[in-house]
Amino acid sequence: MAYIKLNNEDLPGIAGLLDFRPETAKPLNELTEVLLRNESTLSRGERELIASSVSYWNNCHFCHTIHGAVAAAHLRTGLELIDNIKTGLVKIPITPKLRSLLDIAHKVQLGGKNVNVVDILNARDQGATDVEIHDTILIAAAFCMFTRYVDGLGTWAPEPKEAYEEIGETVAKYGYALVE
Amino acid sequence: MAYIKLNNEDLPGIAGLLDFRPETAKPLNELTEVLLRNESTLSRGERELIASSVSYWNNCHFCHTIHGAVAAAHLRTGLELIDNIKTGLVKIPITPKLRSLLDIAHKVQLGGKNVNVVDILNARDQGATDVEIHDTILIAAAFCMFTRYVDGLGTWAPEPKEAYEEIGETVAKYGYALVE
Repeated sequence: MAYIKLNNEDLPGIAGLLDFRPETAKPLNELTEVLLRNESTLSRGERELIASSVSYWNNCHFCHTIHGAVAAAHLRTGLELIDNIKTGLVKIPITPKLRSLLDIAHKVQLGGKNVNVVDILNARDQGATDVEIHDTILIAAAFCMFTRYVDGLGTWAPEPKEAYEEIGETVAKYGYALVE
Repeated sequence: MAYIKLNNEDLPGIAGLLDFRPETAKPLNELTEVLLRNESTLSRGERELIASSVSYWNNCHFCHTIHGAVAAAHLRTGLELIDNIKTGLVKIPITPKLRSLLDIAHKVQLGGKNVNVVDILNARDQGATDVEIHDTILIAAAFCMFTRYVDGLGTWAPEPKEAYEEIGETVAKYGYALVE
């Protein structure tokens, strides 16, 4: 049970918090939509992989698992993708560009100053554009916010990854506005 | 100079990034407005103190100094407040409630799971409401995002605190929409 009295204690993770405070839910949902779903040269599945990986590094079960489930729905990989994210996506083929962007995201998770010009040049060598580098860094930064929000308020989350399959499919299809 | 080619290299810190990517600037500015300026039982000055403190703990000179300058403008303390934030605000009188909320914010900065029920009970004992606890945690989480965004992209920032005085006054008066 969350540390504060929510309107609906049944809603897990961020869902109960978005329901509790619609004023902050609006820009948070809009930011998520723009970063993870709006038109981009990074696919929706790739962006969800970044979000889920950063959430895992932040030790947030809810964010890791739900965004892993959304990634699995986009990429049609099955839910084993969620475990694969824990081990650094070594078992599925990802592009060298996405690998270089995930490396940058990992440094951002540890703190913004960890990113250096070599990381950026490496991503550019793999074909990453300035907008892709920008968006990767902002996705990683945003999931340092979302995970602290979800865990700092002590929200509950279903344990098994199978519990996230349906919502993963729904979000992949319709987006984040419905999660409010 | 930032790691990516911005439209206007003269804009420091987050300003150049908001100008580069208006699609993400919109929800980011709206989130900042709601958290730091909308009607609340925490004063605007108190909320800026939380934002600046979290930015300092995240080692982000730009965010620490600009939000410290905005706090100083609201609270009419003078710019020495910016240095005072570095030492944990021991030299200015802050309420026990704000002290308890800053303690929670510091734990959020380190990672959401650091917050525990004792921290929440302590804040409640000092008179904090559920909305104040919620907003403190989301402000702290959001400034774990903003600082990583600003530093992860290698933006430049003026060094002396005096360089932030005018923008601090302007933001205190007119808000964050103009910073775009």
